[in-house]
Amino acid sequence: MRILLIGATGQLGTAVHETLTARGHEVITVGRTGGDLRYDIAEPAQVAEMYVQAGAVDAVAGTAGDVPFKSVAEMAPTDYLSAFYGKVLSQIELVRQGVSRIAERGSFTLITGILGGDPIPRSSAAAMANGAVEAFVRAAAIEIAPQRINAVSPSVFTESLPKYGDFFPGIPAVDLAQVTQAYVRSIEGANTGRIFSVV
Amino acid sequence: MRILLIGATGQLGTAVHETLTARGHEVITVGRTGGDLRYDIAEPAQVAEMYVQAGAVDAVAGTAGDVPFKSVAEMAPTDYLSAFYGKVLSQIELVRQGVSRIAERGSFTLITGILGGDPIPRSSAAAMANGAVEAFVRAAAIEIAPQRINAVSPSVFTESLPKYGDFFPGIPAVDLAQVTQAYVRSIEGANTGRIFSVV
Repeated sequence: MRILLIGATGQLGTAVHETLTARGHEVITVGRTGGDLRYDIAEPAQVAEMYVQAGAVDAVAGTAGDVPFKSVAEMAPTDYLSAFYGKVLSQIELVRQGVSRIAERGSFTLITGILGGDPIPRSSAAAMANGAVEAFVRAAAIEIAPQRINAVSPSVFTESLPKYGDFFPGIPAVDLAQVTQAYVRSIEGANTGRIFSVV
Repeated sequence: MRILLIGATGQLGTAVHETLTARGHEVITVGRTGGDLRYDIAEPAQVAEMYVQAGAVDAVAGTAGDVPFKSVAEMAPTDYLSAFYGKVLSQIELVRQGVSRIAERGSFTLITGILGGDPIPRSSAAAMANGAVEAFVRAAAIEIAPQRINAVSPSVFTESLPKYGDFFPGIPAVDLAQVTQAYVRSIEGANTGRIFSVV
């Protein structure tokens, strides 16, 4: 398949890129600072330009979302707005603008994360964003068939434990290799409206 | 208790108002067009003014949220943004600004709805908003104790079936009287971080 991969220079994006390429797919990478195409999908107008430049694709996969981590008391309204633009609207736009552009039986795979259901302190913006995207996925799935849409919701990556491990005490980590398989399942499988939890 | 009730002139707000008053609570009603206090909580600055005017309260209950209903293809980015301001950020602001103002063991009860988990066509913005609020509730709960926070997630109201019944084919409706009991449970009980589903 010809797959548009967003967030391609990040830790997860790089792993998904390798996995999909190894399975014989043609991957077009999109990033703000690196990749085949350079766009910031938090800007709806840039999503439109991205689709024009990308041409025909069979699948779209999101692997990135920017959200601030602060306590509820430390957050400002702009922090929640930033999380909304950075992880929710950005991924909704991939779908909203993509339905008329990708293959008739193409798919969207969005990224959420464990914090939507299992929060840690300072994660209210991340949780909010993940919950929003997961509910959007369920709602969009029943409208866009035969196109499909799923989300991948991973725990903290084993590879990220040196950096973030202290924030996830006792919470099982997952290898990036397990997370990339959830993308394979969403893209190559037949499911829709599913949240593939990798925990 | 002294309870601040937002969305007090709506169908649900009116029912919650009656139930809480009948149970001996002092209810201060807030609405955009009616109520003891007139504020639009979709504006963070108005939430601040509302709390100043309300004075000391033991509980805050939200019963309203504005979201557009359109197919994914018909939505504009501004529609999702409108749902975010109208149902997500508005209720987050009740909490974010309220934690330093309400009673030490006070509570917040927010409104979501069945569409977050069980969508119908044209409900992607509503679903997104409900999923966002529910995940926020779980995340905020572990930070704000001993203050508490829950959400009430009702199905379509029996009383609304003449107007909205056609959009909920075969989906069991619930009486407003059942929904108001979930508010009582959240406000007078001891739970926190719960989504009280009324379906």
